[in-house]
Amino acid sequence: MAGPDESAVGPGEFELIERLFAKLAGPGGLSLKDDAAILKPRSGCDLVLTKDAIAEGRHYLPDDPPGDIARKLLRVNLSDLAAKGARPRAYLLSCAWGPGIDVGWIEAFCAGLAEDQAAYHIELLGGDTIRVDGPTVLSLTAIGEVAAGQMVRRAGARIGDDVYVTGTIGDAALGLLVTTGALALASPANEALVQRYRVPEPPVSFGAILADLAHASVDVSDGLLADLTHMCEASGVGAEIEQDAIPLSPFVQEGLRQSPDLWERVLCGGDDYQTLFTASADRAAEVIAAARKTAIQVTKIGRVAAEKINLLDDSGNPVIVSREGFRHF
Amino acid sequence: MAGPDESAVGPGEFELIERLFAKLAGPGGLSLKDDAAILKPRSGCDLVLTKDAIAEGRHYLPDDPPGDIARKLLRVNLSDLAAKGARPRAYLLSCAWGPGIDVGWIEAFCAGLAEDQAAYHIELLGGDTIRVDGPTVLSLTAIGEVAAGQMVRRAGARIGDDVYVTGTIGDAALGLLVTTGALALASPANEALVQRYRVPEPPVSFGAILADLAHASVDVSDGLLADLTHMCEASGVGAEIEQDAIPLSPFVQEGLRQSPDLWERVLCGGDDYQTLFTASADRAAEVIAAARKTAIQVTKIGRVAAEKINLLDDSGNPVIVSREGFRHF
Repeated sequence: MAGPDESAVGPGEFELIERLFAKLAGPGGLSLKDDAAILKPRSGCDLVLTKDAIAEGRHYLPDDPPGDIARKLLRVNLSDLAAKGARPRAYLLSCAWGPGIDVGWIEAFCAGLAEDQAAYHIELLGGDTIRVDGPTVLSLTAIGEVAAGQMVRRAGARIGDDVYVTGTIGDAALGLLVTTGALALASPANEALVQRYRVPEPPVSFGAILADLAHASVDVSDGLLADLTHMCEASGVGAEIEQDAIPLSPFVQEGLRQSPDLWERVLCGGDDYQTLFTASADRAAEVIAAARKTAIQVTKIGRVAAEKINLLDDSGNPVIVSREGFRHF
Repeated sequence: MAGPDESAVGPGEFELIERLFAKLAGPGGLSLKDDAAILKPRSGCDLVLTKDAIAEGRHYLPDDPPGDIARKLLRVNLSDLAAKGARPRAYLLSCAWGPGIDVGWIEAFCAGLAEDQAAYHIELLGGDTIRVDGPTVLSLTAIGEVAAGQMVRRAGARIGDDVYVTGTIGDAALGLLVTTGALALASPANEALVQRYRVPEPPVSFGAILADLAHASVDVSDGLLADLTHMCEASGVGAEIEQDAIPLSPFVQEGLRQSPDLWERVLCGGDDYQTLFTASADRAAEVIAAARKTAIQVTKIGRVAAEKINLLDDSGNPVIVSREGFRHF
């Protein structure tokens, strides 16, 4: 079935929810009034598919705003598409709602989806809705398009490539510490970091340009160093990363001034939802131009080496990082 | 990310799970070693997508065999594809495992997936794995293909069409009563009905032929009469169904001999995962030939009428059905 599960939520609530979700459906979703959706890929394109779930108490907190939760769910998946050079097109959604979720909550959740659908030009194709006696679990399948054969893989980095990352690193990891009370900064840093944890900012517009520029790419979700490791392992190469070059927001800089130990969290904490990629050094000007055109911050942080991953301080000496996010080294 | 969520399950378990799922991945899934999967649709085809979730304690019981749960999850989605005339091709999977799920359980779950992948010629493309402190929630996105523009919709039934249903009706609904102790029949009826509740038998091979024959079609999941209503409402028509023509297994017949009140459950209980469709009366011979070719039981149970849905007894008199599964009439 394409619509909410009637038996689980009761007739009145069912119809209300059906109306809320039907408003989000595009033409392929047939107003969610059929058993399945139709997707007609554009000629000359491959589809790129990803599916990530988030759960209450694990990826978001029960009292986070429902609209923010919706946008996080969507954006963690759009981040995967961006890192693969794909332009997002549509999504399917499965909601298993716990006892605390009422129709007002769902209405706010749908408003968050609607906001991001407009921002990213995507549509809801289908899915379903059930009730569970436990934490809410939200699962989303995102579908994007890329020119045939052009999906950017983790494998493909070449020795001598420049290594780049979009956006800034560490905001969400420190934001999580703020939400749990383990870190307190002054305003507005506290609020800004929490907001980045709640609602990631994946470089979706840059992703559509990436396929033409990048040799290899990965979504930064497990932590910068862990995902760098994933990309290097898949490519059979190493990398040298300059710690001072890693792009930090003013809020993360404030946190690091207060406690330099937070560097480990910044590098290994994850939830960044930025794109880490490599490109040929002779295309640096094109990378800069693409960043400018899409208004996405892109920073060169190092280069691909023959073997080993080294994080270098401002004297060029290796920095030791020892958290499980970096356990492979 | 395409693989299991490392942070949630611990490094050792993570690697084991990664190996279990990687064995299920086809070429498009890139061994689950990238952020997303690639799907290259065949020329001249539309993709058909559906996404249904099942939860512990709601759609299956905690002590059901894990392999059966895996096959149910897959098959409730394949049922939607079959009803739309689509040939299944691939799937993405999201697992939110509760505290009771250990690696042995997951191994048996993956064995069930492997069995059905071989039976239905489909492959795993990607997904993710998380842990939750509550009931397990399993969500699956199934992707099929149909000739461009040929997906069979709920709308499209024409007055005078024959109404058909595949398989038998009511087995799963009575099977659920057996599992909860509300019904007890003799062996082997008890076991057979429970098995049909645990592992549906959607008419997947017939689905691939359906697009050429059917005017309208719906997956029977909410109950025969409820889904007939959905199809008729979408088509703007009514139907006359002969109760005596509804195909029943010997086990359901045994249940009805013991308690004729169970008719309501048979007609409205749901979980049948069969296909209800209409086709022009002058193509009856082709429907019969297709059923024979695919070895799928297909039964004519009535005809499409101008308005109202009537269930008729053997004297042609309307039968009153009054459960919420049939609340629209």
